[in-house]
Amino acid sequence: MMTQAIGYAAYEAGAPLAPFNFERRELRGNDVAVRIEYCGVCHSDLHQSRNDWHNTAYPCVPGHEIVGEVIAVGPEVTKVAPGSKVAIGCLVDSCRVCSPCQHGLEQFCEQYATATYNGKDRVTGDLTYGGYSDHIVTREEFVLTVPDGLDMERAAPLLCAGITTWSPLRHWNAGPGKRVAVAGLGGLGHMAVKLAVALGADVTVVTTSASKADDARALGAHDVLLSTDAAAMAAARNRFDLVLDTIPVGHDVAPYLGITALDGATVVLGAIDMLPSFHTGSLLMGRKTLAGSIIGGIAETQEMLDFCAEKGVLPDCETISMQSINEAFERMERSDVKYRFVIDMNTLQER
Amino acid sequence: MMTQAIGYAAYEAGAPLAPFNFERRELRGNDVAVRIEYCGVCHSDLHQSRNDWHNTAYPCVPGHEIVGEVIAVGPEVTKVAPGSKVAIGCLVDSCRVCSPCQHGLEQFCEQYATATYNGKDRVTGDLTYGGYSDHIVTREEFVLTVPDGLDMERAAPLLCAGITTWSPLRHWNAGPGKRVAVAGLGGLGHMAVKLAVALGADVTVVTTSASKADDARALGAHDVLLSTDAAAMAAARNRFDLVLDTIPVGHDVAPYLGITALDGATVVLGAIDMLPSFHTGSLLMGRKTLAGSIIGGIAETQEMLDFCAEKGVLPDCETISMQSINEAFERMERSDVKYRFVIDMNTLQER
Repeated sequence: MMTQAIGYAAYEAGAPLAPFNFERRELRGNDVAVRIEYCGVCHSDLHQSRNDWHNTAYPCVPGHEIVGEVIAVGPEVTKVAPGSKVAIGCLVDSCRVCSPCQHGLEQFCEQYATATYNGKDRVTGDLTYGGYSDHIVTREEFVLTVPDGLDMERAAPLLCAGITTWSPLRHWNAGPGKRVAVAGLGGLGHMAVKLAVALGADVTVVTTSASKADDARALGAHDVLLSTDAAAMAAARNRFDLVLDTIPVGHDVAPYLGITALDGATVVLGAIDMLPSFHTGSLLMGRKTLAGSIIGGIAETQEMLDFCAEKGVLPDCETISMQSINEAFERMERSDVKYRFVIDMNTLQER
Repeated sequence: MMTQAIGYAAYEAGAPLAPFNFERRELRGNDVAVRIEYCGVCHSDLHQSRNDWHNTAYPCVPGHEIVGEVIAVGPEVTKVAPGSKVAIGCLVDSCRVCSPCQHGLEQFCEQYATATYNGKDRVTGDLTYGGYSDHIVTREEFVLTVPDGLDMERAAPLLCAGITTWSPLRHWNAGPGKRVAVAGLGGLGHMAVKLAVALGADVTVVTTSASKADDARALGAHDVLLSTDAAAMAAARNRFDLVLDTIPVGHDVAPYLGITALDGATVVLGAIDMLPSFHTGSLLMGRKTLAGSIIGGIAETQEMLDFCAEKGVLPDCETISMQSINEAFERMERSDVKYRFVIDMNTLQER
């Protein structure tokens, strides 16, 4: 039996988000229904709502940083039970049989994973609706467990900002003895700093703005490098084993490759955009890597949640009501948030 | 005592190469004097002669694919003796104490390695002159041994085209079970094919020109992919663990990243140039790497020479006289050579 849901949706490109009544599917055998307690606000939510990527289907209910409590399960579900504290991130399904899926890399599913919103359900083809809503129905393999002791409210942004930075930190072996630079200090960047520090790496924030130096250190960064200071950038040449580039728009990567070490990597995480032309010398001199990474796999996401619970790593959040989402989008666009908005979904039906 | 040398030099940008009399330095304790028998003709020789990289000092004696016989050694030399068959590549010195040098990565010396030509001698600061000459004087650590049985004439191009492709094949673990694509089929590309095949990889040549398919297979390639065939390129999406990009000018790397596998790498070897703008999706979707690599270290170069001798891997060469170098440059520019010119240095004093 389908259930009535309420959420907030963009009805068309450029329209403010507004209340939206819709249905969630009847539970399949391996489905889990989750009452959403909190949902983080990701830059992608804004981009998708506005059709910035030219692929949005409307109405669009954003939200892929979801935490809540299980309220019902299908008969085949074994992983969780009603009352379980759980989380759902950017993916709600994938083919689960291709090589990437078999290797825990569902984000690179050869048949393309199903996005939590603006995706198509693999059974019905119906548009998926995200976490700006009172509940969600998802197959159990894509439901994460929130470890005891992890703050539910602040856990939400881990599901995208957390895993997006965790995955490359792990893949490129950030840890003791490794120098990690984080370029950009927004939602992604601040998680990159906290996670890299917790992993034991030596962490430097690279920023255009001297005013962010104190913030960076408060987050745990060991050093700050001003990208506008040519002498400092030259002195940092070849310094960092890993540069996590969280800058959310297309930009010249040459300065970041310049401070990347011999055999090191600059990994683009934030920009889904054109990269301006740059000279191959930035790659050739030092056998350097420019790579990209998106979110992470399901097992890896669970690993990250467990790590955050164990180490007490949590994002810095500002909790908002559902009704203030449009204002939050505006503030996010001008980087006026430290560092992530989280919607308290209990406010959904307020007026 | 300095020795009189004769070579061919560009006296200024744009001038044809012409005979040039100069002096080679007196042997230092660890120096080796080599009578040059053959010298390969590299694209760099042309670029440097013409000042394409805006850093040429004149007169410029090109040539860094050098093979010959030792004719004299300094008192501290232990590695070779008069009569030894030896080779000299792109580097004739480096600081030898920095971390890259200590790790056999002299090409990435933190103090910058000394180039075989258009470099500055680390003792005197004098301009270095390359292999388009009758003999050369080089410190022994940078002199390679030509293994018994390796054809001297055809060995010459191994010193640049060989090591430039060998190094990334080894670094990115090309071998049995790995799919390697080679983009571009010139001096570098044809060596990449031969070496990758000899290493046991599954090798595909990617070319714009259907006419090169037979040539590619004759070199040992298992398959040919036409980069102009959109359907074939789409079918090859995510196929190759390693793409060696030997295209000698700036070009769109997106098609090559497209055929690179999940966690695979496209490695730029040929272009010292601006890369046109491309979309980060090419990197993000599949956690792909765009990297660069230049030549290789000294120990690695010796390893490559030994491998080539053992496996019988040799470049396809066309031997020319010193006097025809300007014509050879012209032909090289229009890719009218299969696949590398080698100068027979015995012709140097002919008229």
